Amino acid sequence: MARQMNVPTLVEQARAGAPRAVARLISMVEDAHPQLREVMTALAPHTGRAHIIGITGSPGVGKSTSTSALVTALRKRGQRVGILAVDPSSPFSGGALLGDRIRMNDHVLDPEVYIRSMASRGHLGGLSWTTPQALRVLDAAGCDVVLVETVGVGQSEVEIAGLADTTIVLLAPGMGDGIQAAKAGILEIGDVFVVNKADRDGADNTVRDIRHMISLGDRTEPHLWRPPVLKTVASRGEGVDEVVEALDKHWAWMTEHGVLRKRRLRRAADEIEAIVIKTLRERMGDLRGGHGIEDHAALVVDGTASAYTAADDVVASLT
Amino acid sequence: MARQMNVPTLVEQARAGAPRAVARLISMVEDAHPQLREVMTALAPHTGRAHIIGITGSPGVGKSTSTSALVTALRKRGQRVGILAVDPSSPFSGGALLGDRIRMNDHVLDPEVYIRSMASRGHLGGLSWTTPQALRVLDAAGCDVVLVETVGVGQSEVEIAGLADTTIVLLAPGMGDGIQAAKAGILEIGDVFVVNKADRDGADNTVRDIRHMISLGDRTEPHLWRPPVLKTVASRGEGVDEVVEALDKHWAWMTEHGVLRKRRLRRAADEIEAIVIKTLRERMGDLRGGHGIEDHAALVVDGTASAYTAADDVVASLT
Repeated sequence: MARQMNVPTLVEQARAGAPRAVARLISMVEDAHPQLREVMTALAPHTGRAHIIGITGSPGVGKSTSTSALVTALRKRGQRVGILAVDPSSPFSGGALLGDRIRMNDHVLDPEVYIRSMASRGHLGGLSWTTPQALRVLDAAGCDVVLVETVGVGQSEVEIAGLADTTIVLLAPGMGDGIQAAKAGILEIGDVFVVNKADRDGADNTVRDIRHMISLGDRTEPHLWRPPVLKTVASRGEGVDEVVEALDKHWAWMTEHGVLRKRRLRRAADEIEAIVIKTLRERMGDLRGGHGIEDHAALVVDGTASAYTAADDVVASLT
Repeated sequence: MARQMNVPTLVEQARAGAPRAVARLISMVEDAHPQLREVMTALAPHTGRAHIIGITGSPGVGKSTSTSALVTALRKRGQRVGILAVDPSSPFSGGALLGDRIRMNDHVLDPEVYIRSMASRGHLGGLSWTTPQALRVLDAAGCDVVLVETVGVGQSEVEIAGLADTTIVLLAPGMGDGIQAAKAGILEIGDVFVVNKADRDGADNTVRDIRHMISLGDRTEPHLWRPPVLKTVASRGEGVDEVVEALDKHWAWMTEHGVLRKRRLRRAADEIEAIVIKTLRERMGDLRGGHGIEDHAALVVDGTASAYTAADDVVASLT
């Protein structure tokens, strides 16, 4: 069913920055295209250059506006930018539902900016499997920075932090109440905190709350990075240069202390595990087609075996 | 670290209906206790009798009140009832955060009612792994009906439907707008729809909307079951007997057409798969300890291998 692609040509075009080739490669990731393995192997030598930056925050903090403002600032420096907007909320959405989240009108015509929406929880698997590969595509396409934007829902914030070199946590005045942030688990994952809409009442209180909570937490990274807490009014571009500066500093700090490599190693290990699990699931799927698991399921339903005993037998048949 | 349990005695006590034994067995599930396999094997012959009913709906539709009213109705018939409240929202919550969701004051002292809260996304794994086993415990403890209640967030509604024989979707007036329901994917999963708070304005519109949307959808079950759309005011117990009646009818229909067995077979197969994946993950975890995956990750980070090639090597070492 899947169309046969000329992978070397596509990869060459993507590396040269052709937007359609980049888009096609990401679609191949989303569709789990049969030639995806070939794509990833061809891309591998050309990855590792981009600074992957995660941007997360609750609905209403101004994520799209902030992302757009960041892109403007990065483009001023002549950098090529990729943007991946990940929707963790629905197993049913295709990319279409995401359309309204991306307000990138200033950038859609810029050939040095790649914008892509992805549903993270499609039938083909979760965030951990597709998103890292889409990031690799943008990385290999010569992006200096790739911004991964997600709305903070449940576990997604923590997951996005696991995909990025640097994670920006966006807040808005009144939402920075320390206990809320602690509950959401965002204090642990933020490398840079940004209180957007800082022209509103309460911005300074929010900054103070977050600073206080950060000072209480114990961060596990060696060579302590103290996350800055900055203020922006993204809609007017105010404070955005300071955010870019903080991102540069964090990059330099990570590089200097070996943290960048450590994070990337952990990420690659997670990605490998996800692919291993996917492979083994597929083998089990083949078993299901062949009635292997169904026969075991019948024993469980009839009470003659526990799910554990059945699982042992399946593992034995896989390995 | 885990305390050694006398499993045969615990199981015997649980089957006799001793609440403390039931509670302890569910704790063993939650903690992935080393003797859990022994527990599940001992329980296996005593499972399969209970009618597992999923109850889901958005925050504010009155899930706890409805669950409580259902329990009252079922108890009037002399049935033993288990209630499992599953919190899908947070990886950080222990059971404690769930306390306020269970407003079961009418039932906590009833020795024929078992109430338990579970966080579904603990560090030990997701809904698919722990919840079915907790259900088995309540089933083996002689519950005639087990209610699994979860708040509708993201994928959790679909997951709960996968765990239950019958799924009740709760709505409230004004929330039944067909497009919302279709977006949330609940039209496909509901066996019985209940519009609660039916004394409020708009209840009849909501009922009509849902009926209309159901008539448009194509349901894949054979021997078409047309989900009833009922009205309740759970806080006053109004309409609850009709819900119980609908549940009985659905049970009879499922039994008559082999749907019950089909659903349970699929569920058991999913459960077996989840345990298989867990087992293989643990083996990979052992690999990680032994630097197996870390070495592969370094190749990926350095661009000398793709994650696929690395995953192939890991699969080969597992199998």
